[in-house]
Amino acid sequence: MRELLRVLREHSSVRDYTPEPVTQESWHELLAAAQQASTDATGQLYCAVEVRDVNLRDRVGKWAGDQAHVHAAPRFVVVCLDVRRLRLLLEHRGERYGMKPHVALLFGITDAALFGQNLSVAAEALGLGVCYIGGVQNHVGEIADALALPEGVIPLWGLTVGHPVKKLPPKPRLPRDIVVHVDAYRDPTPAQLDEAYDVMKAATRSGDWLNPLRKYFAESGVMAQREAALHETLKARGLDPCTSP
Amino acid sequence: MRELLRVLREHSSVRDYTPEPVTQESWHELLAAAQQASTDATGQLYCAVEVRDVNLRDRVGKWAGDQAHVHAAPRFVVVCLDVRRLRLLLEHRGERYGMKPHVALLFGITDAALFGQNLSVAAEALGLGVCYIGGVQNHVGEIADALALPEGVIPLWGLTVGHPVKKLPPKPRLPRDIVVHVDAYRDPTPAQLDEAYDVMKAATRSGDWLNPLRKYFAESGVMAQREAALHETLKARGLDPCTSP
Repeated sequence: MRELLRVLREHSSVRDYTPEPVTQESWHELLAAAQQASTDATGQLYCAVEVRDVNLRDRVGKWAGDQAHVHAAPRFVVVCLDVRRLRLLLEHRGERYGMKPHVALLFGITDAALFGQNLSVAAEALGLGVCYIGGVQNHVGEIADALALPEGVIPLWGLTVGHPVKKLPPKPRLPRDIVVHVDAYRDPTPAQLDEAYDVMKAATRSGDWLNPLRKYFAESGVMAQREAALHETLKARGLDPCTSP
Repeated sequence: MRELLRVLREHSSVRDYTPEPVTQESWHELLAAAQQASTDATGQLYCAVEVRDVNLRDRVGKWAGDQAHVHAAPRFVVVCLDVRRLRLLLEHRGERYGMKPHVALLFGITDAALFGQNLSVAAEALGLGVCYIGGVQNHVGEIADALALPEGVIPLWGLTVGHPVKKLPPKPRLPRDIVVHVDAYRDPTPAQLDEAYDVMKAATRSGDWLNPLRKYFAESGVMAQREAALHETLKARGLDPCTSP
């Protein structure tokens, strides 16, 4: 089964899809594999909303970054944290739901991501290509409303799935010694930070990894701009950690 | 490659390991596959701490639920959200880190979970067994201290890896129609909730899914008990969402 490891090692995001559809049969095979992912205490604290309606896809695609592949992918699904279904299940049998927001976020995001990653791996095993769409966080409130997400359900990110026009080689990752520690966390040394920039430059168009890091993670970067809307959406849907004891 | 989907569909957690070690070679193969998982904007907002020292494993194992498999597994790793390395990378090149806590939690937990799930799938592809250890959240502060986790790094959950004594059949999952929606979220009907309990009873020892749901997710359940410590740990390590604008 070493071939499966090759699938994992050769992952690269696919943004260019042929018009060939992903059949209902394949799609259900992927979802079946995705649903079998681990989930703490059998809770399955996630859901997914496939965006199939053309007009809806157009609107959600624009909000999620307006990139060609979000509009054109044969399948596009928004993966969500979902603690509502669990609450309804408990109330249906006379119990009161008791999770608080911090723990709900941790376990809900984890469950959603394990589902998403199994879906991604399964798709690649069938020769399909995928791309995670973090841009869902650019207009998280609008997307939550458009998908009729109620209290307890938060959109996290999307996944596009389709037949790749071509598959690019995998991108580099950080040197293992600053990612996997033994027995204790150790800060990277300046030399290790230099090495990280050197290894990661092949993941960039400009040849300098600082460019995407600055664009996304520095002050006023994309991630900072996403904060207020995510906070508002959590508040509006009963998952604001600040209401926690 | 359809066989690969079988690996995903047949997943079940393994808590019984033979004493056979997971060699360094296999372990590095698993980590290489895990590191290639998707990550938004190449950020890789996670790290992992393998607990190898015998005394440390003893302590962390006790805090993480004191279950036999956490003590006896050939490999045990604590997977963490890590935005510290990213901050150090930015500062090393004269930039200021700008992510705020809500977004850091969302993207950090996601990155950690994609890494964890690739590690899990890779292990199962090699015939190994794994178990996620959510019990890390039972004593998250003590474990963070014991692993010397600094500001910006939070333990999420563990993973045990080893050669299975035996592999159990996969557990059922919720009916797809209350997990995967099309175009809009729909609440489950009472009949669908009954069906969910019926399907999921095979995942329980008692034959009633309400028992684990009550134990973990109801008022005063395990998840509710984990809230205060997680909140404290986030606060102590600069990731409290309540400090967010």
